[in-house]
Amino acid sequence: MLAEIITIGDEILIGQIVDTNSAWMATHLNGVGVRVKQISSVSDDKQHILNALAEAHKRADVILITGGLGPTKDDITKKTLAEYFGVGFRSDETALENVKQIFAKYNRPLLDVNIQQAEVPENCEVIYNGNGTAPGMWFDYDGKIYISMPGVPFEMQYMMQETVIPKLEQKFQLPKVIHRTILTVGEGESFLAERIADIENSLPPTIKLAYLPKLGQVRLRLSGYEDKTGDLQKQIDYYTALLVERAGKIVVAQEDIPLEQAILNKMAARNLTLSVAESCTGGYISHLFTQHAGSSQVFFGGAVSYSYELKESILGVKNETLWQYGAVSEPTVTEMVFGALLNFKSDYAIAVTGIAGPGGGMPDKPVGTVWIGVAGGGKSLIKKFTFGSKRIQNIERTAITALGMLNTLLTEVD
Amino acid sequence: MLAEIITIGDEILIGQIVDTNSAWMATHLNGVGVRVKQISSVSDDKQHILNALAEAHKRADVILITGGLGPTKDDITKKTLAEYFGVGFRSDETALENVKQIFAKYNRPLLDVNIQQAEVPENCEVIYNGNGTAPGMWFDYDGKIYISMPGVPFEMQYMMQETVIPKLEQKFQLPKVIHRTILTVGEGESFLAERIADIENSLPPTIKLAYLPKLGQVRLRLSGYEDKTGDLQKQIDYYTALLVERAGKIVVAQEDIPLEQAILNKMAARNLTLSVAESCTGGYISHLFTQHAGSSQVFFGGAVSYSYELKESILGVKNETLWQYGAVSEPTVTEMVFGALLNFKSDYAIAVTGIAGPGGGMPDKPVGTVWIGVAGGGKSLIKKFTFGSKRIQNIERTAITALGMLNTLLTEVD
Repeated sequence: MLAEIITIGDEILIGQIVDTNSAWMATHLNGVGVRVKQISSVSDDKQHILNALAEAHKRADVILITGGLGPTKDDITKKTLAEYFGVGFRSDETALENVKQIFAKYNRPLLDVNIQQAEVPENCEVIYNGNGTAPGMWFDYDGKIYISMPGVPFEMQYMMQETVIPKLEQKFQLPKVIHRTILTVGEGESFLAERIADIENSLPPTIKLAYLPKLGQVRLRLSGYEDKTGDLQKQIDYYTALLVERAGKIVVAQEDIPLEQAILNKMAARNLTLSVAESCTGGYISHLFTQHAGSSQVFFGGAVSYSYELKESILGVKNETLWQYGAVSEPTVTEMVFGALLNFKSDYAIAVTGIAGPGGGMPDKPVGTVWIGVAGGGKSLIKKFTFGSKRIQNIERTAITALGMLNTLLTEVD
Repeated sequence: MLAEIITIGDEILIGQIVDTNSAWMATHLNGVGVRVKQISSVSDDKQHILNALAEAHKRADVILITGGLGPTKDDITKKTLAEYFGVGFRSDETALENVKQIFAKYNRPLLDVNIQQAEVPENCEVIYNGNGTAPGMWFDYDGKIYISMPGVPFEMQYMMQETVIPKLEQKFQLPKVIHRTILTVGEGESFLAERIADIENSLPPTIKLAYLPKLGQVRLRLSGYEDKTGDLQKQIDYYTALLVERAGKIVVAQEDIPLEQAILNKMAARNLTLSVAESCTGGYISHLFTQHAGSSQVFFGGAVSYSYELKESILGVKNETLWQYGAVSEPTVTEMVFGALLNFKSDYAIAVTGIAGPGGGMPDKPVGTVWIGVAGGGKSLIKKFTFGSKRIQNIERTAITALGMLNTLLTEVD
């Protein structure tokens, strides 16, 4: 089954926002066997939207539209859809009730523009918005399904997860897709590819292997469509086991989860705790862990020590170490990681200190110089890296590298 | 002048990568007065690409294509373009020279696939790639310009900056676009819209106002195309001043920057420093600040205190406060924010403590309960919020709300 995504809004066309919705939707549609044929971003212009709808109608079975459903007058999606379907408007009671409840909850007066949000094209079935006032809309028209959702990511995501995906699965008999992901960290794509080439070449034509590299990690994804034989799951399990055995120590997880989640799972299963001392990553490592539910079982917290003073006062790094070797040095990162273990009383700790850039580089320590230390279980790893010149990439690369080193430490004590 | 962007590659359609190229290109095209009419992502499929090209030809003057130019076998853009233009191939000397130089530099053997990269459609003018081996291509065909570039962001960016933008400016007399963004925080889109309705209605037809809402913030964007009178900048300045005056205290910046950058700028200008004590946001607030270059001038760092112990040991929150009132309480957040000021020795501090969820809720403190404190300059604001049930949104909403409160504190002492 083919889908097409249309995102409406000048903010994408002028480059003010990056369209992350489409990738999210595509991933989730693919997960239930719906293939996305095209993604189009069009302007807040009636005729342009009408053309895009008509073109998508020719190509796809399901047309998903996001954007242009807020309360202000530059939103024209709803009117254009009514014109496209040749229908009038009705006020939807459940949508109005939702608007009223949200405004009551926040004790704010209901304005006319908010009441108008419950006005929908006559032929639509309303999709409940658990995260906002704008209703989503489901249309069954001329043999095709049209789905319109707000552009606010977590409103769209709520509707996709709660209504759209289950409803598509129920309405169409979608071929079952089976994906299986192996997460590896610390080995480049081409080296890994060479090591597993014979396994890859032995895969049956029904099973596809994809390499998904990202920032020091490579995800290996096996996928296939279930057929009449019903053997696919068994086959995918078989090849997963072969790949995991061959890849060895670099395997972090056999499911499609983020690296930090895999580490949290591993540590929670062993009742281990973790703290961090972050300098150049500035809270990013902590954020990676704490965005996940249940992280507080493992993660105690830590220090974001941007200044010399905080490295001393919170982490107990010696003043003379900082002045003699500098903040970005082996002695400092060593004192940071052991200071974290001591002061934060966790079983394991991560410490990072480096020059993220663009400023702060020195002849002997250029931008991108980073020291990472991990310690715990009576062992430690302290390493120096030289990353690039871009600040955000240096922050991300430092974080992922530190997580990879912690994973190594956790694996070695197995 | 109208442009259209076509991105080619299945990796976007399966959601594996987010299309950040298009936003980057759109921003830079807009900067020189080229309006992007549509962005389409299509699959690595010849017929599909041919259709997309033909459709774009009808709508736009300039068609920019990215993706599908690498050395591997699934790249078909070049062949499809030759077929679309009805031409054969030629080997381009400068492109071949570039490939040879790059391989020589890295001391790697030149393979056939690399030599083939210099093969281009006969009717193309090669665009030099300073960051890679794949040449870009410029076509002048049937009154329209077609530009094909690799999908690797920094290769595309090099070509756009060095060749494409200057060449477009030289070839066409482009109208100047003026955008002006006002960043507001803490008032909903519809309330703000009502307050400024009369100003919006008085705008001349040449100036458009857009509302760009995002997580507690609303960006107001005025934009227009310069005409012969040359008055546009003056007019936009005039309406910006009206809007800023009317919006009042909720205005954070009169340029298109993130909220935390606006706060960093404001504090840096006054030589003020900041530290944080984060519980439920788990490092996210620190990360927001530290992702920006130069943040260390203002931001000292702080504590991510997920456990009771760290709230006591780093922040000096009293043990009896935690046990009597709980970690999520007014006394605790108050001690956290003043503890941060005292221990981290900054001029201002932010403290947050709450239940991000999905676990940890209690009858009197459901998931989404958050206490936020900001203090400094002899003043403080301590407030309780009840957000929703989703962890990530609670983290983001808490961070933005805390930033908004800090902005209020900074504005009040003006």
